[in-house]
Amino acid sequence: MTHFEGLLLGASLATLDAPAGYGEIRDGALGWRDGVLTFVGPRTALPGDPHALAREVIEADGWITPGLIDCHTHLVFAGDRAAEFEMRLQGASYEAIARAGGGILSTVRATREADEDALLAQSIARARMLVADGVTALEIKSGYGLDFASERRMLRVARRIGEALGIAVRTSYLAAHALPPEYAGRADDYIDAAIDWLPRLHAEGLVDAVDAFCEGIGFSPDQTRRLFEAARTLGLPVKLHADQLSDLEGAALVAEFGGLSADHVEHTSEAGVRAMAQAGTVAVLLPGAFHVLRETKLPPLDLFRAHGVPMAVATDCNPGTSPLLSLRQAMQLACTHFRLTPEEALRGATVHAARALGLADRGALRVGMRADFVQWNIRHPAELCYWLGGRWAEAVYAGGHRLQEPL
Amino acid sequence: MTHFEGLLLGASLATLDAPAGYGEIRDGALGWRDGVLTFVGPRTALPGDPHALAREVIEADGWITPGLIDCHTHLVFAGDRAAEFEMRLQGASYEAIARAGGGILSTVRATREADEDALLAQSIARARMLVADGVTALEIKSGYGLDFASERRMLRVARRIGEALGIAVRTSYLAAHALPPEYAGRADDYIDAAIDWLPRLHAEGLVDAVDAFCEGIGFSPDQTRRLFEAARTLGLPVKLHADQLSDLEGAALVAEFGGLSADHVEHTSEAGVRAMAQAGTVAVLLPGAFHVLRETKLPPLDLFRAHGVPMAVATDCNPGTSPLLSLRQAMQLACTHFRLTPEEALRGATVHAARALGLADRGALRVGMRADFVQWNIRHPAELCYWLGGRWAEAVYAGGHRLQEPL
Ligand SMILES: [Zn+2]
Ligand SMILES: [Zn+2]
Repeated sequence: MTHFEGLLLGASLATLDAPAGYGEIRDGALGWRDGVLTFVGPRTALPGDPHALAREVIEADGWITPGLIDCHTHLVFAGDRAAEFEMRLQGASYEAIARAGGGILSTVRATREADEDALLAQSIARARMLVADGVTALEIKSGYGLDFASERRMLRVARRIGEALGIAVRTSYLAAHALPPEYAGRADDYIDAAIDWLPRLHAEGLVDAVDAFCEGIGFSPDQTRRLFEAARTLGLPVKLHADQLSDLEGAALVAEFGGLSADHVEHTSEAGVRAMAQAGTVAVLLPGAFHVLRETKLPPLDLFRAHGVPMAVATDCNPGTSPLLSLRQAMQLACTHFRLTPEEALRGATVHAARALGLADRGALRVGMRADFVQWNIRHPAELCYWLGGRWAEAVYAGGHRLQEPL
Repeated sequence: MTHFEGLLLGASLATLDAPAGYGEIRDGALGWRDGVLTFVGPRTALPGDPHALAREVIEADGWITPGLIDCHTHLVFAGDRAAEFEMRLQGASYEAIARAGGGILSTVRATREADEDALLAQSIARARMLVADGVTALEIKSGYGLDFASERRMLRVARRIGEALGIAVRTSYLAAHALPPEYAGRADDYIDAAIDWLPRLHAEGLVDAVDAFCEGIGFSPDQTRRLFEAARTLGLPVKLHADQLSDLEGAALVAEFGGLSADHVEHTSEAGVRAMAQAGTVAVLLPGAFHVLRETKLPPLDLFRAHGVPMAVATDCNPGTSPLLSLRQAMQLACTHFRLTPEEALRGATVHAARALGLADRGALRVGMRADFVQWNIRHPAELCYWLGGRWAEAVYAGGHRLQEPL
């Protein structure tokens, strides 16, 4: 009888299964069965002849990392905002862009108009690009529907992407992303509506977590709190777009609810960092938006390090502020703009990203974890953060299955 | 008799065959024969039934642009500098990195040690990545050999890349890139040697242009001038790494020699810009190095615009300061960091890049030009500058031949 369904031999492993360092194993062996890793170690530690142990033996080189995990995306949307991007570079003011129908509400309009299959077709193409660059699990938020039917459609599309690609998709309900035009001047009423929709969507199995955009131009801490209380009633974890443009103490708020993550966090204070540390809330860094918006205020990285707050890195893939379709590229930007080390960036896109999604069964190469991993054509794991562009993922595996190219 | 070997129908064309704008043709037709475009226009202007006119008819959608042209790369090298990149982010000083064997001389060492086939294997992988993202012509510099045999080997590898991939490669002789250790303290002697090697390499057909790194930490204007005079004697065009870190009046110097391009040009003065305008010298913008080095001094873009100096955009692909393997990504960085419009960036990677390489037969979609073009899965040409990461090139054609994936 074979021990393993699959056994991959010869590559170096960056297991990340250690508190620091890459957890490197040279000339490694990775075995799996029923979608779960059942051997992680040096080839020499295998209990016998590989071909007697495994149904399929794959000789590989380069490096193997855990599958990358993109823990913050707005991947499901219709249309794009390239024309608006161009107008801005041609010198148009935000007012002029809004008059021309630009801004987030243009994405809301396009997303409301797209039927489920059209929305799926556009969005799954983007998910395939992320996967081609090493992503095996991702979060997808609603938040461009802003009415019950459209939010539901976005979440359904998110679920269908996961099923179609054979990867894990975690959904976040982000009705509190922006105020839809029909609720202009009635933000509290809109939050009431969002709270009303939540249990119905949850009952359909469409919601894994609840998110909000807590900001001067978004929703207030009080409105966020009401939404979070509704989430708590349903036993749903929360996360928050917190302190991106100003310090509204969003980090402390989401920590108070034992939240999975506080995201952006450029303006988070030391009190907020302490609250996150105490609650075990992950700081999700989003260098794509920082890059595109040419921000200058860095998140309090040294405070996160000092207080032991895990830092994740995500694409924030969205059509307005972060049209970013590579988590590896987000890692590069995290190193360039935020001065993360490559090891911090890789840990942020694996171990800590898993934690930010509440996924205990992935993010590292360890026996018992899901057999989600990537074989990279590289000689050093730092190359994942070093190159801009290029194609480095030789093979991407989810649950022990190789995802096919072109995905 | 068929008019065309190939006829591509239905996509929108961004011909760039106009002084401003994308030169857009909706529902276009592109016909070619013997590697050259013989029809560019709307489908309705075709002189008959497509299938009677062409041996092969391709129905396409999305957008067609001219093949992208990367006019400044150091693509041929051995090794990489990811470990040095990591050390820097871990806080190591430049001194410590130099002590650990890092810096440009580590690339020189690795490149000298690699035999021609090994150098080809490593370098062609990078060229394939550029091509996969739309590049059909590129420049490749020597400059990591710094001795006759190694410079020659680099240039031979550059030629072999062009032949193997079926794309145009223009070589630049950049022996004056750095001072090799064996010439420490004897920069003038080294320039004498570089001048001595040049005609021998040129006689082998290995040199299309002569380049130098004119900078406080590179070679002086006087040394550069001596090299340029040797180039002039051979009838070779010149170009220059000019005014990147300080204003040594490199732009004016290369303009004085009627140079093809002045590259980097962050610190170029208005006098330098005027000289470039008069000489028809292209300004090559290299936002990758600007990004990686976190520079803040912008090139004098408004002066280039005011004086009508064409601006090209290139990757500067190199292992130290610009590990950039996508010209599309360089365009994105040019828009983000330099505020180029997407149209300027696209023109900079086609029309103006062709001019920077002295290639009169490509860079736009026009009858008589080479049938080098890319079919992109996009709805608006600005998307080429908008997305970070992702895969958008559906098909890449050089001389009317579709380059195969995986290249
Ligand atoms: Zn977001
Ligand atoms: Zn250069």
